Amino acid sequence: MDIVEELLQGNRLALSKAITAIENEYDEATEIMTKLYPHTGNAYVLGITGPPGAGKSTLTDKIAKEYRNQGKTVGIIAVDPTSPFTGGAILGDRIRMNGLTMDEGVFIRSMGTRGSLGGLSHKTADAVKAMDAFGKDIIIVETVGVGQSEVDIVKAADTTMVVLIPGMGDDIQAIKAGILEIGDLFTINKSDLPGADKLVREINMMLDLDSFMTDWRPPIQKVVANQGEGIPELLGNVQKHRDYITEKGILAERRTKRAKDEMLDILNSNLSRYIKSKIVDTGRLDNYVEQFQQHQTDPYTVVGDVMREMLK
Amino acid sequence: MDIVEELLQGNRLALSKAITAIENEYDEATEIMTKLYPHTGNAYVLGITGPPGAGKSTLTDKIAKEYRNQGKTVGIIAVDPTSPFTGGAILGDRIRMNGLTMDEGVFIRSMGTRGSLGGLSHKTADAVKAMDAFGKDIIIVETVGVGQSEVDIVKAADTTMVVLIPGMGDDIQAIKAGILEIGDLFTINKSDLPGADKLVREINMMLDLDSFMTDWRPPIQKVVANQGEGIPELLGNVQKHRDYITEKGILAERRTKRAKDEMLDILNSNLSRYIKSKIVDTGRLDNYVEQFQQHQTDPYTVVGDVMREMLK
Repeated sequence: MDIVEELLQGNRLALSKAITAIENEYDEATEIMTKLYPHTGNAYVLGITGPPGAGKSTLTDKIAKEYRNQGKTVGIIAVDPTSPFTGGAILGDRIRMNGLTMDEGVFIRSMGTRGSLGGLSHKTADAVKAMDAFGKDIIIVETVGVGQSEVDIVKAADTTMVVLIPGMGDDIQAIKAGILEIGDLFTINKSDLPGADKLVREINMMLDLDSFMTDWRPPIQKVVANQGEGIPELLGNVQKHRDYITEKGILAERRTKRAKDEMLDILNSNLSRYIKSKIVDTGRLDNYVEQFQQHQTDPYTVVGDVMREMLK
Repeated sequence: MDIVEELLQGNRLALSKAITAIENEYDEATEIMTKLYPHTGNAYVLGITGPPGAGKSTLTDKIAKEYRNQGKTVGIIAVDPTSPFTGGAILGDRIRMNGLTMDEGVFIRSMGTRGSLGGLSHKTADAVKAMDAFGKDIIIVETVGVGQSEVDIVKAADTTMVVLIPGMGDDIQAIKAGILEIGDLFTINKSDLPGADKLVREINMMLDLDSFMTDWRPPIQKVVANQGEGIPELLGNVQKHRDYITEKGILAERRTKRAKDEMLDILNSNLSRYIKSKIVDTGRLDNYVEQFQQHQTDPYTVVGDVMREMLK
């Protein structure tokens, strides 16, 4: 029986293999995704992002457990920060997932950047689809940071939760500017620390100033994840946001937008691979660069020539 | 007289216009770059990166002034962090550049992300070339942060300086992992604050453990930029690194590697524009997504079809 059939029948090992194929860009990945695609669209995707040290892993675990208590199955994709050069994902904190890993209703997968962040958002989106086709009700995509790459990853989410903690100092200002518009929900973790209320006030002020504000005002929820405080309320907020965007047609809009971005993303990455096979692997790039250095031609002229040569 | 001729004759307004054309992807940008290309390769490019709040702007100003004291002309490209959605670059701290802006030997330009970080590294590289062709001896590319995007930007540099400050707490650990391999020089700014020596020891420990270490051990220099302390020593270290990589042939290797990356970058972004004109602007993408949603086809199949249609 093939991997896709096994996956669709609920075989966890098949799901794991499918995501490995996606992650490593194995040849069969495209075939797998093509077959899985018709079975997607049923899961609800929750994105969780925030700066390092905000306690996102613990929070993700608690949220997952709470969904399990509600009888829902959960998939977790933990996108890990990586040195762009060494390719080693920092998976250490996943070890904290003690109880969860024993629960058959939860599937946890870490994904590292392996030096290609561009590819990561596309791979994360495909991993979400694999878990969706597998039958998970809720898929949590957890990612560190709030830069452009993390924002791209979070685009795979239906609802995005931004996690902050008190006492991050002035650097938080720079972070806040970028997250204001991606956060559907704000969670203040470690809210037993001093400064939690100040942070709530600051976020409220930013929201007051936000000219993009729709009818939905992102709720700001204080939690203490490692003690489980505030978790049921968080799930309530996720549900409220889900109801809101469903009712207003925003969920459908977001998913349409996402489908477009994904299609362009797949097309771009396939073209990049094609270019690599034609220009890099053949040694042509080396020759071009030699010619640049001898000022015989320049990259702009060569790109024009190559485009005319490759495209119909 | 055209903009390129004017630029090559030292007209600052022409340089400014050329960079604006690059930044906004005006049609003439490619022609400008084609003409400028043969005049590039003479400037030395210093990259300065580090987390927000490390005092990079002040440091950049002081370094630029010191180079001016040595009789060298300087170009500064300050790459600013931006909210990926609003597109507003945070240029505020550039206002601090009081003395410098009056100096004809210094050309300062801020570049924002405007929602396309991928394009930013390519645009920064082109702005560097414009300043290079203009005749600047030293070009400083200053960028905030140490994520993948900033690393891409720093790739335009011959020597990369990583700026850190004492007392950044544990979060600095995550940052350090990524910067270890891009830093040719480490600068501890605000080194009159407590913890400077501890930070030096920590970086030294990381360098001791670094299995990628070459003959070049990155020097760690303590400075207090706003008081001008340690700046001449910094320039001495830059010169030592420049001598080292020149002598060992590493500079030539880096520039060859950079020329290859740039050519692929230009090719990729031209192809993206081509795709947009064929698939997005024509409304085909909208039709595809409708078909996906009705499960009539899937993005992987469509991408295959489109590739066959577009490529020779």
